[in-house]
Amino acid sequence: MKIDFNRTVELLKTGNDIAILTHANPDGDTLGGGYALMLALRQLGKRVKLINNDPIGPRYAFLAEGCENDSFEEEFVISVDVADIKLLGKETEEKYADRIDLAIDHHSTNRLFAKESYVDGDSASACEIVYSLIKAMGAELTKEIADRLYTGCSTDTGCFRYSNVTAKTHLVAADLIEKGADHGEINVKMFETKTLDFIRLEQKCLNSLETYFGGKVSVITITRAMLDETNCSDEDCDSIVALTRQIKGVRAGITFKEKKDGAFKVSVRTHEEIDAAAICAHFGGGGHMRAAGCQFECGKDEALKQLLAVVEKYL
Amino acid sequence: MKIDFNRTVELLKTGNDIAILTHANPDGDTLGGGYALMLALRQLGKRVKLINNDPIGPRYAFLAEGCENDSFEEEFVISVDVADIKLLGKETEEKYADRIDLAIDHHSTNRLFAKESYVDGDSASACEIVYSLIKAMGAELTKEIADRLYTGCSTDTGCFRYSNVTAKTHLVAADLIEKGADHGEINVKMFETKTLDFIRLEQKCLNSLETYFGGKVSVITITRAMLDETNCSDEDCDSIVALTRQIKGVRAGITFKEKKDGAFKVSVRTHEEIDAAAICAHFGGGGHMRAAGCQFECGKDEALKQLLAVVEKYL
Repeated sequence: MKIDFNRTVELLKTGNDIAILTHANPDGDTLGGGYALMLALRQLGKRVKLINNDPIGPRYAFLAEGCENDSFEEEFVISVDVADIKLLGKETEEKYADRIDLAIDHHSTNRLFAKESYVDGDSASACEIVYSLIKAMGAELTKEIADRLYTGCSTDTGCFRYSNVTAKTHLVAADLIEKGADHGEINVKMFETKTLDFIRLEQKCLNSLETYFGGKVSVITITRAMLDETNCSDEDCDSIVALTRQIKGVRAGITFKEKKDGAFKVSVRTHEEIDAAAICAHFGGGGHMRAAGCQFECGKDEALKQLLAVVEKYL
Repeated sequence: MKIDFNRTVELLKTGNDIAILTHANPDGDTLGGGYALMLALRQLGKRVKLINNDPIGPRYAFLAEGCENDSFEEEFVISVDVADIKLLGKETEEKYADRIDLAIDHHSTNRLFAKESYVDGDSASACEIVYSLIKAMGAELTKEIADRLYTGCSTDTGCFRYSNVTAKTHLVAADLIEKGADHGEINVKMFETKTLDFIRLEQKCLNSLETYFGGKVSVITITRAMLDETNCSDEDCDSIVALTRQIKGVRAGITFKEKKDGAFKVSVRTHEEIDAAAICAHFGGGGHMRAAGCQFECGKDEALKQLLAVVEKYL
């Protein structure tokens, strides 16, 4: 059931012994929003733990610092930035699938798997929503909370670059900086640091680049071998995905990433008029207008053929 | 002579038949601030022209659209985002050097070459200053003005990424988006569009990468041959410069760019504790704490030797 902002604040204020769930392969937004909410709820005297299905990558490790879990049996379960129960990751899904009391999300494609869901598709990040909730809960926006919220606001917008940014996004960022967020340092960590290994991965990916439909569609393929040869991890692939859309003339950029089990995870990034979420929905995936994903169990050639047939209709 | 904000507003309101000067190889900030000021001054009934010493690159061409110069003999001359008279470019310097009535600048190293100078080193961009001036002049922040100011705010901060960003920068951006600035589209133009030619240049530059002092200093060299082979222009080098600092462990990133006359333009980008402007001042250059430049007439090997000797003291 969808609920409004005030009901969400009420649930947060009345809930006790809370578990917060992030999505699998956690990114800056799910972790930033999750840990910020943890810190704010603790100010209100609650016991809180945060469950990550997957390990936190080194880039985001600072978000968990000083946020050890309390030890208790959870009574109230909240998911942050999780659009679909499947995105929780296998173990978390098995344990919590039917026990999520409140979903807080900014994906308008949210599948409403929770008992109550607060979904604001106009927010550029989950952290933008959590910011408003924390203020409304009456918790103090400490520097520790500001750092975490800023990280989500920044990472989910390509550092305020994408068209999902609104005036509100900037107002939130201004306030978080006022409250002490180390924005310069966070952005260096998030965006300005490439290892030489990563630069080698980037070069390999650019060598794999194919274009279709007169250059309107670009395809980059990341194989396990490319990751192994460059000592890069799945986390490193996030910025490769952004590359596909950056090539002049490209309207839709597609990244095929080989998973450990041989299946392919596909990320679609589009410009203005092309609905990435709709394209991915054809294959059981979802996401946002400009950034969405899906998965193929068949080989890459067959997957590419099916995908291009759908993409063509949207060009 | 340095002047304060109110005196600057008074000069703008009382000046008539105004010429606005940008800096050589004009970027998004000098052009955005210059044309925004032109449009605002016209609202107050003034005749205005804008003098670019060099052609406007294709990326920034939209900033000049609908901003044709009025025809008149200038009485009042304003420079925007020009830190040093030498940065005006040869012809503009020859014509205007001793005739600049007002300099509006955010480089704290501004050499105070104008009769009166308003320098606010805390502003992340010249456009951030021009925004406040336009509001104080009582001109309306139209969509056309908002687009131009947003461009400068965004380009001079690496899209709100650098540590020169303040809460005010975000408040200004929020207001400009409210006033209709096409932020998503502008950022795609400024940051998200790479030609395949540029990608080839980027790969060549990364192949030229050298590191010194245990990886704390990176050096990239861009020769004329590399630009010619990839059909790239001087304007394309701006984003290469940013690369040098992005490599993990690098505290100071140095780019040598061969000019058409064989001299080398050097750009220095640093992290936190290293003062790029001070380093470049050793060689007659200047700029900001994290981003500065200078020039060498000697060969690259000798220049690199001299530069590394100075950089070492700042590490």
